[in-house]
Amino acid sequence: MEPEIFINFKHYDNAVGTNSEKLLTDFKSIKKQNGLYYCMAETDLYLQKSFPGLHIYGQHVDSNGYGAFTGSVSIESLLDLGVKGSLLNHSEKRVDSSIIESVVKKSKELGFKIILCVENLDEAEKYSKLEPAYIAYEPPELIGGDISVSSARPEIIGQAAEICKGRTKLLVGAGVKTKEDVDTSMALGAAGVLIASGIIKNAKPINRLVSLMGNR
Amino acid sequence: MEPEIFINFKHYDNAVGTNSEKLLTDFKSIKKQNGLYYCMAETDLYLQKSFPGLHIYGQHVDSNGYGAFTGSVSIESLLDLGVKGSLLNHSEKRVDSSIIESVVKKSKELGFKIILCVENLDEAEKYSKLEPAYIAYEPPELIGGDISVSSARPEIIGQAAEICKGRTKLLVGAGVKTKEDVDTSMALGAAGVLIASGIIKNAKPINRLVSLMGNR
Repeated sequence: MEPEIFINFKHYDNAVGTNSEKLLTDFKSIKKQNGLYYCMAETDLYLQKSFPGLHIYGQHVDSNGYGAFTGSVSIESLLDLGVKGSLLNHSEKRVDSSIIESVVKKSKELGFKIILCVENLDEAEKYSKLEPAYIAYEPPELIGGDISVSSARPEIIGQAAEICKGRTKLLVGAGVKTKEDVDTSMALGAAGVLIASGIIKNAKPINRLVSLMGNR
Repeated sequence: MEPEIFINFKHYDNAVGTNSEKLLTDFKSIKKQNGLYYCMAETDLYLQKSFPGLHIYGQHVDSNGYGAFTGSVSIESLLDLGVKGSLLNHSEKRVDSSIIESVVKKSKELGFKIILCVENLDEAEKYSKLEPAYIAYEPPELIGGDISVSSARPEIIGQAAEICKGRTKLLVGAGVKTKEDVDTSMALGAAGVLIASGIIKNAKPINRLVSLMGNR
C-alpha cells in the first residue's frame, strides 16, 4: 500500500495567499496526485477550483452549518468550493470534544473526510470510536522539530495503529522529514503521514515531497 | 455626512460560497459603492479579486501573522487578497481582550481597518481607547430581531457616540432594518450602521440596501 501524504501548509509565509498558488503550481507537476492532500489556509481554499486535479483540504472546520454565524468555516461552505476534507483539532487549533463529536458525525453524513488530530494514545482511543476518516497522531513535543515520532518513539505508532484498526486510518505526524520516517510509519501500521515544515520549510518543497513519495 | 453601511453576510445560505458571488453581482449594480462594505465569510474573501470596485471585508481575524499556525486567518493573508478590513469580536465570534488589543494595534501598523464589535457601553469605553477604525455597538438581545436599537434604546446611541468622539467612528447595529433606523442613528452621532439579516434575509437584498441608502 502506498503512503498517503497530507501536507499542512499552516500559515507559513511561502504557503499562504499568492505564494500558496505558486507552491500548488509546483506540486501540480507531480503526475500521480493520488494519495496527496494539500491542507491550506481557509482563505486559500477557493484554489480548489483552479486546481481541480489536486486534493485541497482545509485546516479546520467549525460545527455550524449555514445560518447566523459570523467568522465561521462550515463543512457546507468547503463542499461548495469543491473541498472534500479537513484537518480538525490540530494542536495549533484545538477544539472541545463536544465539537469534535458533532463535526465528525456531520462529516460522515455529508461525505466529508475529517483528519482528526490527537496528541496521545488516550485521545486516539477516545476519538477513533467516532470513526473519523483518519486519526493523525502527533506528539506535541515533536511538532516542528527535527526528531520524528517514527525514530523517537516507534513503539507508540504500533500501539496507535492497533487502536485505530478496523475503525479508521492512522496518519503519523510530528517531525516527519524523510522517506525512512514514512517507511517506518507504514511498516508499523500507519496509512500515511501528516507533514508540514518538513516539506514547506524545505528549500525545495517539491523535491522534498517527491523524495518522500519514493517510486510510486 | 452619508451613512456608512456595513453588511454582515454571516453564514446565511444565500450569502456564502457560490451564492455569495451571486449576491455580490447584484450589489455591484449599485453605482455609488463609496461607504458600502460587504463583510463575508473567510472562504469567500478571494472574491475581492473578482470585484475590485467593491469593498469586501472579513468577519474575523486572528492575532497571528505568518508562521506555524494551523486554521488561522491573519491580517496579512487578508491584505494579500486585497481585503482591507474586518469585523472583530462579533457577538457570534467573541475573543479575549488581550487578542483585541493585539489585533487593533497591529491593524493600525498595517493600515488595516478593524470594526470592533462591543455589546455594551462599558466595552465601548474600554475599547474605544485603543482607537480602532470603528466601534460597532450591538446590544446582543436585539441582534437578529425586529426591534432596532435606534427605536428601542436611542439614548444609548448618543452615549456611545459621546464615548467614541475623537477616538473612533461609531456604527450602530442589531435589528437595523429601515431608513429611519439609519437616519436616527446618524442624527444621534453615529457614522453608520452594521446590518445583517435586515438586508441579507430580505426577499430582495439589493432593493433593501438601496432603500437604506436613500438619495445618495
